[in-house]
Amino acid sequence: MTKALIVIAPGVEEMEAVICADVLRRAGVETLLLGLEGEGAVEGSRGIVLGVDQAFSGEENADLLVLPGGGEGAKRLAADERVRAMLQRFEKDGKWIAAICAAPIALVAAGVGAGKTMTSHPSVQDTVEPFAGSYVEEAVAIDDHLVTGRGPGAAFDFALDLVGLCVGPQKAGEVRAPMMFS
Amino acid sequence: MTKALIVIAPGVEEMEAVICADVLRRAGVETLLLGLEGEGAVEGSRGIVLGVDQAFSGEENADLLVLPGGGEGAKRLAADERVRAMLQRFEKDGKWIAAICAAPIALVAAGVGAGKTMTSHPSVQDTVEPFAGSYVEEAVAIDDHLVTGRGPGAAFDFALDLVGLCVGPQKAGEVRAPMMFS
Repeated sequence: MTKALIVIAPGVEEMEAVICADVLRRAGVETLLLGLEGEGAVEGSRGIVLGVDQAFSGEENADLLVLPGGGEGAKRLAADERVRAMLQRFEKDGKWIAAICAAPIALVAAGVGAGKTMTSHPSVQDTVEPFAGSYVEEAVAIDDHLVTGRGPGAAFDFALDLVGLCVGPQKAGEVRAPMMFS
Repeated sequence: MTKALIVIAPGVEEMEAVICADVLRRAGVETLLLGLEGEGAVEGSRGIVLGVDQAFSGEENADLLVLPGGGEGAKRLAADERVRAMLQRFEKDGKWIAAICAAPIALVAAGVGAGKTMTSHPSVQDTVEPFAGSYVEEAVAIDDHLVTGRGPGAAFDFALDLVGLCVGPQKAGEVRAPMMFS
């Protein structure tokens, strides 16, 4: 069974965290919301409070690591030594790494994905673009095992692409259909 | 200032509740997440736990009442006498009423919006269609002060339409742009 970790910090963009967790769980992926600052609930960028499944330690293992955006949440992820070490470990082990919106700044801080094709929210383009091999203004960029997304409006595509990559395209289609996209 | 209430019950579709709250708050709408069963946090349909701003009493006032879906959550909304009375009061007072996914079954239970143009998740079409004047298979249906939506994949359109209707189209555009839809 595929396992995913989503690390959330105060200021996380709630829609990005929730869309990723919900869509991955719809696909049968064992998905944990890990609290960067402990096991307490996390208040997001728009004041919505999200429960966490367990405190983040940095020692967790999984097939996929997802970093949601939100300006302040992403800054905290990027500044955290444990997150940077986990990103480096996932890259070294050939695991899936995904970052959306402002969260690609954590990749830059960790030196993970250097030279790859990436996107991000325009608000952090100045940080991400010089680090990426190629910066694209697309909803989702996929380069080897690194997946980046542009913002909340790209979050469904981002999450469904993660299902397609980590579980398979058939499952992504099964999950997509009953969500009623037009 | 525009005020919105979002009523959530155990089994709520997390993405629908969070997208509505987040987008309305981005638009400057004072938005409260009300817990149907009290002030404790609410576990949604995919196990994500959402904090509530206050317990639902049924006596609250606002310009807009939003009912998110999720099969089990919507059943609880539809079965609650206080929700039905609030829907009837909002309709009588000409306030905005919005229900997405499975939540239009609460409109049917309350006898609110009878004969209007509506949509819903296909899973509850058999309940909603005979009650609606016209049932449409569209992302969002707007008829007078009643707004219905089809599912999580329609939630962004649904929430942005609520901003457009309750605040104004210019604000909806301002909120939409930085979310980076492709």
